[in-house]
Amino acid sequence: MSQRSMIIDTDTASDDAVAIIMALRWDDIDVKAITIVSGNVPAQQGAANALYTTELCGSSVPVYLGAEKPLIRPRTHAHWFHGINGLGDVDYPPAKRSLTPGHGVDAMIETIKANPGIILVTLGPLTNVALAVSQAPEIAALVSRCVVMGGAACTIGNVVPAAEYNVWCDPEAARMVFHAGLPIEMVGWELCRGTANALPEDMAHIRSFGTVLGDFAVDSNRRAFEATQKQSGDPGLGLPDPVAMAIALDPAVCTRSSQHYVEVETQSELTRGMTIVDQFDLTTDERNVDLWRQAHATGKISVCWEIDVPRWKAMLFNALR
Amino acid sequence: MSQRSMIIDTDTASDDAVAIIMALRWDDIDVKAITIVSGNVPAQQGAANALYTTELCGSSVPVYLGAEKPLIRPRTHAHWFHGINGLGDVDYPPAKRSLTPGHGVDAMIETIKANPGIILVTLGPLTNVALAVSQAPEIAALVSRCVVMGGAACTIGNVVPAAEYNVWCDPEAARMVFHAGLPIEMVGWELCRGTANALPEDMAHIRSFGTVLGDFAVDSNRRAFEATQKQSGDPGLGLPDPVAMAIALDPAVCTRSSQHYVEVETQSELTRGMTIVDQFDLTTDERNVDLWRQAHATGKISVCWEIDVPRWKAMLFNALR
Amino acid sequence: MSQRSMIIDTDTASDDAVAIIMALRWDDIDVKAITIVSGNVPAQQGAANALYTTELCGSSVPVYLGAEKPLIRPRTHAHWFHGINGLGDVDYPPAKRSLTPGHGVDAMIETIKANPGIILVTLGPLTNVALAVSQAPEIAALVSRCVVMGGAACTIGNVVPAAEYNVWCDPEAARMVFHAGLPIEMVGWELCRGTANALPEDMAHIRSFGTVLGDFAVDSNRRAFEATQKQSGDPGLGLPDPVAMAIALDPAVCTRSSQHYVEVETQSELTRGMTIVDQFDLTTDERNVDLWRQAHATGKISVCWEIDVPRWKAMLFNALR
Amino acid sequence: MSQRSMIIDTDTASDDAVAIIMALRWDDIDVKAITIVSGNVPAQQGAANALYTTELCGSSVPVYLGAEKPLIRPRTHAHWFHGINGLGDVDYPPAKRSLTPGHGVDAMIETIKANPGIILVTLGPLTNVALAVSQAPEIAALVSRCVVMGGAACTIGNVVPAAEYNVWCDPEAARMVFHAGLPIEMVGWELCRGTANALPEDMAHIRSFGTVLGDFAVDSNRRAFEATQKQSGDPGLGLPDPVAMAIALDPAVCTRSSQHYVEVETQSELTRGMTIVDQFDLTTDERNVDLWRQAHATGKISVCWEIDVPRWKAMLFNALR
Repeated sequence: MSQRSMIIDTDTASDDAVAIIMALRWDDIDVKAITIVSGNVPAQQGAANALYTTELCGSSVPVYLGAEKPLIRPRTHAHWFHGINGLGDVDYPPAKRSLTPGHGVDAMIETIKANPGIILVTLGPLTNVALAVSQAPEIAALVSRCVVMGGAACTIGNVVPAAEYNVWCDPEAARMVFHAGLPIEMVGWELCRGTANALPEDMAHIRSFGTVLGDFAVDSNRRAFEATQKQSGDPGLGLPDPVAMAIALDPAVCTRSSQHYVEVETQSELTRGMTIVDQFDLTTDERNVDLWRQAHATGKISVCWEIDVPRWKAMLFNALR
Repeated sequence: MSQRSMIIDTDTASDDAVAIIMALRWDDIDVKAITIVSGNVPAQQGAANALYTTELCGSSVPVYLGAEKPLIRPRTHAHWFHGINGLGDVDYPPAKRSLTPGHGVDAMIETIKANPGIILVTLGPLTNVALAVSQAPEIAALVSRCVVMGGAACTIGNVVPAAEYNVWCDPEAARMVFHAGLPIEMVGWELCRGTANALPEDMAHIRSFGTVLGDFAVDSNRRAFEATQKQSGDPGLGLPDPVAMAIALDPAVCTRSSQHYVEVETQSELTRGMTIVDQFDLTTDERNVDLWRQAHATGKISVCWEIDVPRWKAMLFNALR
Repeated sequence: MSQRSMIIDTDTASDDAVAIIMALRWDDIDVKAITIVSGNVPAQQGAANALYTTELCGSSVPVYLGAEKPLIRPRTHAHWFHGINGLGDVDYPPAKRSLTPGHGVDAMIETIKANPGIILVTLGPLTNVALAVSQAPEIAALVSRCVVMGGAACTIGNVVPAAEYNVWCDPEAARMVFHAGLPIEMVGWELCRGTANALPEDMAHIRSFGTVLGDFAVDSNRRAFEATQKQSGDPGLGLPDPVAMAIALDPAVCTRSSQHYVEVETQSELTRGMTIVDQFDLTTDERNVDLWRQAHATGKISVCWEIDVPRWKAMLFNALR
Repeated sequence: MSQRSMIIDTDTASDDAVAIIMALRWDDIDVKAITIVSGNVPAQQGAANALYTTELCGSSVPVYLGAEKPLIRPRTHAHWFHGINGLGDVDYPPAKRSLTPGHGVDAMIETIKANPGIILVTLGPLTNVALAVSQAPEIAALVSRCVVMGGAACTIGNVVPAAEYNVWCDPEAARMVFHAGLPIEMVGWELCRGTANALPEDMAHIRSFGTVLGDFAVDSNRRAFEATQKQSGDPGLGLPDPVAMAIALDPAVCTRSSQHYVEVETQSELTRGMTIVDQFDLTTDERNVDLWRQAHATGKISVCWEIDVPRWKAMLFNALR
């Protein structure tokens, strides 16, 4: 079977870990590199978590440390959601594996250049990707798909009323990436809500596998499970990164998408990090042409509106079985 | 039957006119004053339209000219939606009635003070109301309901991707009004979409009445009918002002609402006029407490999410029959 | 001698009081009304201070209460500069005079209409003036001079690094006033600095008069004296409002001025309330034309750059002698 | 004589070229690398200009191509000031030298790491430096001085009323660099104004040298000479980059400087790129503490207020003689 190359950029916390497991265990995917960015947890912690997760999977994929803070914003980690260590404060042992030398941004540029057609999956703030496309804009054309877990398409945010954490955390980076000409597929956090949550029965099912990976997935996400319900009143555990990864692995998981100009709010604190989707093609209206010039010049990106929930859950279960 | 007092603030174009007709013909409502604000059309044109509409209804309600431009933004009329004269460029004769002397803002303040418990319905940008509550903050407590046609609750805008026209047009005024302590019921433009549109068959039905008011409603909105379909791909004619008026006249038209802190974006051009609804009660989070302090101090307002479409259409038909 | 009419809008604290005394004691000036705005102190306190000051002068000028808070910003009083009561926390008795009924904004509109050619002097945030010109834009053409104590022309601010208190306090109001077509003479706070300060020897000189007004001026400003030195390292007491008033009374006090487009920053918190003076006539450059469209349409205003310090001090002394 | 290492980041146009000549001809300076950034001219043109300039000096300093556009803003070149080719549209032949392979950002990081204590001089927008400190924050501590030609300290801008070109062009990059912990010496454009201009007699003097470098300096800046006078009414040719270089080469050229917190405006279009200097140490005031938290955490930088004009001109002449 011919293999598809993938590079994963991640602020590895509990749901990133599950997404990484899904990629590493998927048949036709060859994960060439994992790059770590500051986000849910400090970059060093994210690196430790990624190393531990890959080790659990028996993988020797290189893991590179990347940007240790957002471009111009102060760091804001999501400890309230994932715990101090990002893995629900479960006390996992340190990985035996260690970081591959070199900076994540350089690794990203080189990995993409070495693997034209690669799939780029981003699970955290877009700082690393922004730095990479600033320094090497030519990589945009070498990526076949750029699946972004980030944003909220015409819906509510999870960290402030108007924005999702990854984009809110480093909105300037997100704007740079959204304007870079990458073939972006935006997977908003809302796609993991409601029945797409890992429901209590789903977690019981995973637990029933009696596997190390299954137990790790459930245990490390226990705090996120509680935080999801407290935050949004959802019925279970929101797993935005694994949902995005499921779409990256199998595009058929996204059952409805459309192409739009999308812009990221960077000027106002109140709506910082909002992903504004131009559903009515208003960007050429007199009122909008100046504000949307860059987004318009970049071209439309793909926004995912709906997923096949049973298919996504089957993928989740298979990865942890 | 005991009468309820109402004051209507309007930038009278074609859908405002229908809303005014609904109010003037509703049994237990006594419209004490109509105040005109710059918006869909220049204030002088809006005044002419309101005078003509009230005359058609045989009403002698006083009509006052108010603010002739937004507080700090340049004027942007919605000619692309309602035509140059706001009534679809149908050439109606001038009204025989004339404006009542005095400024709309003074009239609003005096009318509210003279009629404690009055219902305030706003169908245009909130400039007049903002000036009134700035000068006389005590009127907020004298209004029993303030039904605002304005905003877009966690959905897309109609004039820019993130905002609805009335709030976008004068966002500073909207913010002032949303912070004034009025008992606001926010009726977003999305509530008139889809099946809530006046569909072609609904317009044929109105036409079949053979009434002056019915013909006026259909004719003056012909351009808005075309503009709705072009803008949003909707099946018929969007009538946001009449939907808001229906809720003002009969609260049962709103079948689902909830109370939230709501803030209006004024700092960014990209999201100017967005109405941000804090659905998850995030305003006291560390990340939000400063930005949401004023909205939080003001208290929650009511956001309408769903309407009883048959009930609203029956009200529309009855008013025009 | 023919009299010039004047109306003073003030958030009466210690330096406003001195400015009011100067106007009331100036030969050819007839102060028609004083309107109070929230600013240095809450409006009710400012009103009490203005009533007390006018009473000291034996004046019966009507004093009207105006806006009790900025248009869209929360209130921020300058207690750190003028004390809690605005008069250096000296315990003056309540005035026997009382407020004239009616709102300051209405009074301003009516006074200007009744006295075409009147001089408008503003000593506080521009909330009242903004509300007046919004409601009655025609008054702009009836004012012969509008002397604004406010802003900082290409220099540093006194309350944040980029802005002066009066403009910072209600920047939206300032922008509205600067765009209203009034014949503005902008008197920045920097004009009262350095040798234009009331120096210790100047205050000793005033004290030597042995007059009630002189003692009042020195005593009520003692806290401002200390605050000036602490804030800006200046040698004495900054009296921005009296300097502006001196220019209003005798234009020859301003020895260098020029006409410029001026814009007020309202979008950013960091530079909120900055008065940007376009000294190079850049507003028609491609880079600036959109941002400066409103200021350009309004026309240039007069910016004062230099004053005749001995002349200003002579006026100060004469008023208190 | 022990040599001081220097790295120059430049958007090489006519005044950058003179600054480069000054550095290359200065006795105790060893220019290790020149990195090119998009700014006055596109990066490719800037590279060609730098190569030509170094070749004129007989230097073999490596020249690296860096960022080809600002981080998140569209490119705006200063063709109105420096001509299309950046050298006053004089038709110089292509250099025989060519670019050194590798990206300017990588070269900057490596050069700084290889030369601890190096002096970093920036003559263009700060995009390259921002990317370098994002990827390798540890380099900040290895730079002994970072002399920035950029900003306008409490004065007027040259490209918009509130900002200087280099900072305005990429304000996000400037903010990142100002927060990076580098030992910044900010040399605002105002320091090259007035008598610090290269006056007509200065240019005649340079021309009298009859040297290739002298003629090149005068010829390539002819358009900038005209643009300076048209823009700011100054008496001669503004040479901001050579003034900054003079300070870098000989700190005694700066005769008055002080340490301040400085912030860069990125949120508002009107004041975009303004360098706000906190002269009164207001950043810990209640009103400022949140907005200035990052600048405060970074520490004060050095702002240059005054230069020794004869000394600077002597340096200019010596370099071109």
